[in-house]
Amino acid sequence: MTAATYDVLGIGNAIVDILAKTEDKFLTEQGMAKGSMALIDEARAAAIYDAMGPATEISGGSAANTIAGVANFGARAAFVGKVRNDQLGNVFSHDIRAAGVAFNTQAASSGPATARCYVLVSPDGERTMNTYLGAAQDLSPADIDPAQIAASSIVYLEGYLWDPANAKEAFLKASKIAHENKRSVALTLSDAFCVGRYHDEFLNLIRSKTVDLVFANEAELTSLYQTEDFDKALAQLRNDATLAVVTRSEKGCVVVAKDKVTPVPAFPIKQLVDTTGAGDLFAAGFLFGLVRGLSHEQCGRFGVLAAAEVIQHIGARPQASLKTLAKEAGLPV
Amino acid sequence: MTAATYDVLGIGNAIVDILAKTEDKFLTEQGMAKGSMALIDEARAAAIYDAMGPATEISGGSAANTIAGVANFGARAAFVGKVRNDQLGNVFSHDIRAAGVAFNTQAASSGPATARCYVLVSPDGERTMNTYLGAAQDLSPADIDPAQIAASSIVYLEGYLWDPANAKEAFLKASKIAHENKRSVALTLSDAFCVGRYHDEFLNLIRSKTVDLVFANEAELTSLYQTEDFDKALAQLRNDATLAVVTRSEKGCVVVAKDKVTPVPAFPIKQLVDTTGAGDLFAAGFLFGLVRGLSHEQCGRFGVLAAAEVIQHIGARPQASLKTLAKEAGLPV
Repeated sequence: MTAATYDVLGIGNAIVDILAKTEDKFLTEQGMAKGSMALIDEARAAAIYDAMGPATEISGGSAANTIAGVANFGARAAFVGKVRNDQLGNVFSHDIRAAGVAFNTQAASSGPATARCYVLVSPDGERTMNTYLGAAQDLSPADIDPAQIAASSIVYLEGYLWDPANAKEAFLKASKIAHENKRSVALTLSDAFCVGRYHDEFLNLIRSKTVDLVFANEAELTSLYQTEDFDKALAQLRNDATLAVVTRSEKGCVVVAKDKVTPVPAFPIKQLVDTTGAGDLFAAGFLFGLVRGLSHEQCGRFGVLAAAEVIQHIGARPQASLKTLAKEAGLPV
Repeated sequence: MTAATYDVLGIGNAIVDILAKTEDKFLTEQGMAKGSMALIDEARAAAIYDAMGPATEISGGSAANTIAGVANFGARAAFVGKVRNDQLGNVFSHDIRAAGVAFNTQAASSGPATARCYVLVSPDGERTMNTYLGAAQDLSPADIDPAQIAASSIVYLEGYLWDPANAKEAFLKASKIAHENKRSVALTLSDAFCVGRYHDEFLNLIRSKTVDLVFANEAELTSLYQTEDFDKALAQLRNDATLAVVTRSEKGCVVVAKDKVTPVPAFPIKQLVDTTGAGDLFAAGFLFGLVRGLSHEQCGRFGVLAAAEVIQHIGARPQASLKTLAKEAGLPV
């Protein structure tokens, strides 16, 4: 194994978020399940946009948010994802590069527009997402550069990659190359509805050791094991996964290894504004701790710190220096 | 004079803001005059975007922000401005309509892209703007609908319209129709550098009564009269204009009529985040007071209230209900 060029490389759907505040009544009227991510087609995207309020555009995408967070902490980061060469594709590309992330995936020059996620933020800070995958549909194994994967200490993949047609092949190709080069592979389960669509495949990825580390929240975990019993699901995950982290909102997280289970409390916040990106930034902090070789508890503390920053403002990417916040919290950066 | 369909109709450059936090060092390196608005071409726009940090896209445009504010207070509002039929044009059109504003100007189907303003926000909240006018260049007299102008109580125009080639003709056409229909015409001087480019023409607009109401800040006022003496400039404005309002940042504003000068103190704020839109939203509040037939002092109080809301968050359009804020402040809405 040669020295790595990147600490973490993420692969995910390249998406621009279109965020607007909403009342819960709007979600009901539109038949949306509060807190979930729904896939929508172009016609539905247009209808939702017509009906929703004035919005703000901010680059998003789950794994992309995580990777922007990893770079913000000061680690070396890269991202792989597909945009179209349109205005929103330029916005996505600019933002991730300006965050200090290497991003070289070829933009599509034809076909559907850059992916958009219509994010509706309720008064209680909960976000409800509607994703038009657009150009992200066209991520394929050809977009995976074997040399870049081989040069990345951790490859981080989002469960949402099971939605586009060819992205799962890209995912599996990346995992194979990573393991051939003695690198680690991490997976986030992304969303409880996404787990509902693919739980057998996700379980197989974990049990076959295609992934070494699993991120999940409580709803994703119970969806994965098709049970409402959290403790039972956690015990099964501990049995199946090499390493896993389960985030529990205001209860913090639990790091689950074969030899021990480590709970970490949530980081205090002043005001919950928008939960978009909470899980993504938790993963950023945890991965940063891992690449620095820290204990599971310390990794968890980096995770809850980054999640606390992102939920106190609109948008799913950090607006403050996570490195500075970590220093102020006494964490080793 | 028939009953009006709209309380306020604004004409201005239709622009999407691309906002990023910056350090003042960046402004110096890029040769930007802090606090000003500079016009840039497409190549310079690309260079600035490459160099600046991760950004957020929010609809902007000075008069458009004002009109969004007028609608937010609960008045009937319309906007005229030119976008291209591209993704950012769709963003602009969506946001202004979702704000409750009538917006029917035909989007350009060819030519330059929708206008963008690269807004760099310093740690002290001051914003420095770089505008690529793009499709806004193509606003022309043909975009002015005589019936719509005739049906608007106040026509509000931005001084920035002197920058695009044909927009000033549209401006003059609108002013003429408004006066023929016994409507009022208001002008914002927009920016001290803009006044520097066109002060003779702006003075002529005021002295010829092409405009009935003038909005200016201190720098614009002294630039208009080419003097550093604020009191002297204010006396000249009082002599030249039918009615004028001069905003003075943390000192509030002064309403200048022939018979009296009315100072109004600033509205208290918790934290200055981003001054983008302060003047635009001041105008929104003042115009709202006017259409409700209130006193100059009350109009000024609506103005400082709206300005206070917009400078406490990123972006130049209100994020809270101005109507609710006005009620809470004991203003008559």
